[in-house]
Amino acid sequence: MTTTSSPIEHGLVDDAPAAPEGVEPLQPTMPGVAYTAADYFAAEQASLFEAEWMCAVRSSDLAAPGAFERVQIGRESVLIVRGRDGGLRAFLNICRHRGAMLCTEDSGQVRRNLQCPYHAWTYGLDGRLIAAPNMAAIDIDGSLDRQQYGLVPVHLREWLGYAWVCLADEPPSFEDTVIGSVTERLGSSDTVERYGATDLVVAHRQVYDVAANWKLIIENFMECYHCATIHPELTEVLPEFAQGLAAQYHVGHGAEFGSEIDGFTVDGHEGFGRLPGLTEAEDRRYFAITVRPGVFLNLVPDHVIVHRMFPLAPDRTTVICDWLFAPGIEGVESSVELFHRVNVQDFEACERTQPAMSSRAYRNGGVLVPAEHHILDFHEWVTERVGPPH
Amino acid sequence: MTTTSSPIEHGLVDDAPAAPEGVEPLQPTMPGVAYTAADYFAAEQASLFEAEWMCAVRSSDLAAPGAFERVQIGRESVLIVRGRDGGLRAFLNICRHRGAMLCTEDSGQVRRNLQCPYHAWTYGLDGRLIAAPNMAAIDIDGSLDRQQYGLVPVHLREWLGYAWVCLADEPPSFEDTVIGSVTERLGSSDTVERYGATDLVVAHRQVYDVAANWKLIIENFMECYHCATIHPELTEVLPEFAQGLAAQYHVGHGAEFGSEIDGFTVDGHEGFGRLPGLTEAEDRRYFAITVRPGVFLNLVPDHVIVHRMFPLAPDRTTVICDWLFAPGIEGVESSVELFHRVNVQDFEACERTQPAMSSRAYRNGGVLVPAEHHILDFHEWVTERVGPPH
Amino acid sequence: MTTTSSPIEHGLVDDAPAAPEGVEPLQPTMPGVAYTAADYFAAEQASLFEAEWMCAVRSSDLAAPGAFERVQIGRESVLIVRGRDGGLRAFLNICRHRGAMLCTEDSGQVRRNLQCPYHAWTYGLDGRLIAAPNMAAIDIDGSLDRQQYGLVPVHLREWLGYAWVCLADEPPSFEDTVIGSVTERLGSSDTVERYGATDLVVAHRQVYDVAANWKLIIENFMECYHCATIHPELTEVLPEFAQGLAAQYHVGHGAEFGSEIDGFTVDGHEGFGRLPGLTEAEDRRYFAITVRPGVFLNLVPDHVIVHRMFPLAPDRTTVICDWLFAPGIEGVESSVELFHRVNVQDFEACERTQPAMSSRAYRNGGVLVPAEHHILDFHEWVTERVGPPH
Repeated sequence: MTTTSSPIEHGLVDDAPAAPEGVEPLQPTMPGVAYTAADYFAAEQASLFEAEWMCAVRSSDLAAPGAFERVQIGRESVLIVRGRDGGLRAFLNICRHRGAMLCTEDSGQVRRNLQCPYHAWTYGLDGRLIAAPNMAAIDIDGSLDRQQYGLVPVHLREWLGYAWVCLADEPPSFEDTVIGSVTERLGSSDTVERYGATDLVVAHRQVYDVAANWKLIIENFMECYHCATIHPELTEVLPEFAQGLAAQYHVGHGAEFGSEIDGFTVDGHEGFGRLPGLTEAEDRRYFAITVRPGVFLNLVPDHVIVHRMFPLAPDRTTVICDWLFAPGIEGVESSVELFHRVNVQDFEACERTQPAMSSRAYRNGGVLVPAEHHILDFHEWVTERVGPPH
Repeated sequence: MTTTSSPIEHGLVDDAPAAPEGVEPLQPTMPGVAYTAADYFAAEQASLFEAEWMCAVRSSDLAAPGAFERVQIGRESVLIVRGRDGGLRAFLNICRHRGAMLCTEDSGQVRRNLQCPYHAWTYGLDGRLIAAPNMAAIDIDGSLDRQQYGLVPVHLREWLGYAWVCLADEPPSFEDTVIGSVTERLGSSDTVERYGATDLVVAHRQVYDVAANWKLIIENFMECYHCATIHPELTEVLPEFAQGLAAQYHVGHGAEFGSEIDGFTVDGHEGFGRLPGLTEAEDRRYFAITVRPGVFLNLVPDHVIVHRMFPLAPDRTTVICDWLFAPGIEGVESSVELFHRVNVQDFEACERTQPAMSSRAYRNGGVLVPAEHHILDFHEWVTERVGPPH
Repeated sequence: MTTTSSPIEHGLVDDAPAAPEGVEPLQPTMPGVAYTAADYFAAEQASLFEAEWMCAVRSSDLAAPGAFERVQIGRESVLIVRGRDGGLRAFLNICRHRGAMLCTEDSGQVRRNLQCPYHAWTYGLDGRLIAAPNMAAIDIDGSLDRQQYGLVPVHLREWLGYAWVCLADEPPSFEDTVIGSVTERLGSSDTVERYGATDLVVAHRQVYDVAANWKLIIENFMECYHCATIHPELTEVLPEFAQGLAAQYHVGHGAEFGSEIDGFTVDGHEGFGRLPGLTEAEDRRYFAITVRPGVFLNLVPDHVIVHRMFPLAPDRTTVICDWLFAPGIEGVESSVELFHRVNVQDFEACERTQPAMSSRAYRNGGVLVPAEHHILDFHEWVTERVGPPH
């Protein structure tokens, strides 16, 4: 048996339900305060959401030059804009003059540039300050640094058809962190690439306002011990999930569809044709990957489901879920319905867990059964970056 | 004249309106910060509501095995459950595995046991862990301590037909504290016992959401200096309350009905027959007792009124009021209406006092007139346990 | 050219758009934390709103003896009352006995005195304690100091038809601070006096609940660099405002109406006759004055507009705006509409600035262009009294 300590998600194998020899079957979670304290959340904002790569927007949502969206990343309002050169750029959504928010709409389209509606300071789509009323009094000899007084840039990188942003001055390696999460789970990033997510279209999008700490949502996604209890439709499609208790998972393993199942739909009926790039190995399989700190990727033969998380408070997280299909596909309702139900079931579980995080019974945390031991890696990842909760 | 410094409530005597010789007529209250500061309230939660006996639920509300209610005690959600052996037990309402709240309904009925809806860990009605998916991987050699991973127990004691709970590891003596409060007020607990509250039924229940600190509610209940001003109906029934200003009260004194009054009803008309156990001395009398930190008992010949307080925030308290009558009684409306009006009048007074607690004019508190001097005992009781406000 | 560093507001001159020689054109604002931190706001409450003269109520709103209004000044609820001698007095709105708020209505009329509705302690309209139930037990030998247990007095001064109050034990000189602000702006207080504001009547009042820090509202009022961008109606009436960029202003300068403009109305049509006391120099002119920390005065030939600010939280301010006209005037709608639009435009700008105050891009503040450099004086005034934000 090949075991691994890397973070692995949904997907059970038949063997290895128990902890390895010498490992206690019940391992501790993080203490409750990590899920409730304002100061720990502030430290997470600084050291995770404003330090790591966060998946911000679907690139194709910003079609033409001047199209923009704003997203909340950590404590910052970030503006993503399609430039005149066709590229995407990200900036802090704040005028350099007196601090007004440039865009108060969640998305929109400007014609030529970004003008502050307070005093009309005007920035190019590349962020440069290009005009201001009475510029002559400000820039007496024409030496004003238009970049310095331009919009504050935010690092941006596109992958899988999404714009990922990083607020750190010097971002960590995208390859090591984001793509590394995928490689760790699947052995390489080849499988993911074969689904061709960049060229798929968003057939459905659902926004969830979840009254729970973001870590509860990740922990929930990382284990399938709860599947038999709360996911009747999902375990019908993926019977091995009903076993609910693999200790460790094989790298690269995808959960197999049940023999009676024709597609990844709410009632198991046929979906759509296999996406063009896929191999036989990916057919009739479900792969799930967590990209820390805020993305879940779900791969099935005929579509891809992408969750983006935006933690807003210790007990509140927005999750945006996109269902991506091949262009031209119609009638995706029963495909969408399956994972929408899974989402609702999961988020309700997280919401009923959140209030108990402040109980004296969770002061030293709860316990992880062997099928959940890989969550320890996630906790270690958090603690290394944010420090121990206290 | 027999005077006493014990905490005494509604009920006036004709003599002693002034402070004893050598005692300043105007005594200080607690400073405003004790009624507003988040940290003082947190200390009260730890040292009072989670340390003393709190009246949680009416026992008869949990009729059959598997019936449960959850209540907020201090910072904890506590579950009270009727066991298969007919006894009541209390537990923290949180699963020992990953911390989900077991019950999110305020009350309900389970069939055989308490199952966590997240991962299906299952507990007996006695709190013992009895099952979990893949228990074999958790309890490899059958040596797992089912008590240790059972629900966290909370001390419970029944009295007057209520389940009282205490979150302290080692609770204070129920006899000294709860029953002691009654003895101090009435000389013994015999009088209370004679009303037979355990066998009465809840004819009406009213829940009040009061925007005031819990201590303001207790102070209000402890004095009758306000009765003439805000309780027209009550002073009609109990004319001595209109005098409004007894300095100290006789131990055991109950306020007498007015000579024209036929019953403890909103307009003084006849109520119901005297409860069977009562003596002549209890007839046509109203007795009021404060059981610190959260219960008021009100005794009249044909019914008993019980207030339970649940402090939620420095400026917010839930009060649940039960009207208990002999079984089979009908038409209690005008009896209920009398004290319901008193409650509304009192809670409005508390609510208009709360906002001024943060005023510079209350920085060193207000003053207690001689008829309120016994409130000093309550303040001392709080300060001894919680420490001085600062 | 006569320049001045005193705080000057709306009103442009043709020359001097640039900073004086040797002065950097871009000067720093206060850092973002000054607009968001709870502790900085608490320090402002103590050192500004509870230390300086605040404009509380329109005197004529309290016509007869016993008329009262309550206003929030800093952290205190203050009661302004018309006495039996015809004078106005201010008190903390809290009973000296047990702290109940005397008045919970924003305004009203009592018959003879102020009686606490909790225990009926009764105060004269001059604040003296005049009665309490069982006073004999409180004031045994008649030596009780009725002033000491009277309502806590607050300093009050009337000017321009308003009652100004100050919570400081020893208020700053009204002449130096309030009237001094006017003198600094207009050279003397004669101009303001000529408008006869005391004898005008409130033809319209509008209350604005603004989701922005009070300093953003003052800064907005102090500069006209934004006028061209957000005030189309105002710049139509006052064309020099459209230039948007005077560096400094002449003391005493008022902005002139456009040549096609017949009155200070939303479409420039004729208003009402010039107020009786005005000279030719004030005709067809608009003067604006800031009286720190919370009043804006706006003078036009036929009316006066007075803004009173009540800061409630770091990000929330109530602004009450009165339009004062000569008695007997009717049909003020289009006059009112002009500045009501200006208010809405300004407050929206402030509200879209507030959220960005917590951005890392505003950690060291934004910049002031030469036309805004006089705002530095305001920032210095704040910092001197409250201390530097941190």
